[in-house]
Amino acid sequence: MALEEGQNGAAEKVAVEVSFKSFKPQLFVEAPKANDAVQFYKTAFGAVETCRTTQPKRKADQELPHIVSAQLQLAGSTFLVSDLSDDSASTKAGGTVFAMCLETEDVEAAVTKAVAAGAVAEGGIVEGEGACCCAERVTTVKDPYGFVWQFCSPADKCGANVEA
Amino acid sequence: MALEEGQNGAAEKVAVEVSFKSFKPQLFVEAPKANDAVQFYKTAFGAVETCRTTQPKRKADQELPHIVSAQLQLAGSTFLVSDLSDDSASTKAGGTVFAMCLETEDVEAAVTKAVAAGAVAEGGIVEGEGACCCAERVTTVKDPYGFVWQFCSPADKCGANVEA
Repeated sequence: MALEEGQNGAAEKVAVEVSFKSFKPQLFVEAPKANDAVQFYKTAFGAVETCRTTQPKRKADQELPHIVSAQLQLAGSTFLVSDLSDDSASTKAGGTVFAMCLETEDVEAAVTKAVAAGAVAEGGIVEGEGACCCAERVTTVKDPYGFVWQFCSPADKCGANVEA
Repeated sequence: MALEEGQNGAAEKVAVEVSFKSFKPQLFVEAPKANDAVQFYKTAFGAVETCRTTQPKRKADQELPHIVSAQLQLAGSTFLVSDLSDDSASTKAGGTVFAMCLETEDVEAAVTKAVAAGAVAEGGIVEGEGACCCAERVTTVKDPYGFVWQFCSPADKCGANVEA
């Protein structure tokens, strides 16, 4: 970067240094099918689940817990599978919804840099929801081409609640 | 896998061993904006381009070559950006289109295993199109949740035609 600015510098044309720890595509499926989808990716592709974040049942007729995100390893990469909720920060599609998660120590700087480049911030920073599997802080931007990116704090505690 | 079968075994409930070399999300943008999108991902996220496959101009008013796929490195992962063509094997969405590429030495076995698990094969194997950046053979399945996966032969020659 030719230009260095502090985190509190002007948002416009600021060259902020941001490093990303991981890149995880996130696939949203109609609730409560995320568990089935995880099983499919294990069977079809040999994916291995390494983390799962769930919410308690929210409806009496809901047999499975709502999967906020299940983390899968495949071919040296990581992706997430989530039950779709009404407030999922994601790209709505013709039957499919997805986002990309970028893990970073500095969520605010990541937003600042992306917005300076032309992305649009969507909502504020959400605390403790586990949207990117065990991440404590998550926020969302939409890029100029319609794709949704989530900036997530590092998920150091992943793996504690994996289902085999 | 408990059951081993040859590649020519019955497609139903066959436990085929398939290994994947890489996992690459592929983002399709309205042509000819893929070049702009690549620039955005470099500026916003610090992505680094490592491979680009293009087709010659197909229309007189088309100033930029059609980008079949540009390969970007980000946070230790790889993703692809492509100009959307009418025959793109991908998930159509509300303004966004995407797929996931899985690189494998045995494209046929990957399809067999995915279909046995519940995916639907879409078309046959395409030769030499570069859809997954420099891959020589590509075929597509749609999983039971609507997501599109492309199985690609390994792209050993990537990097020859990168634009800085």
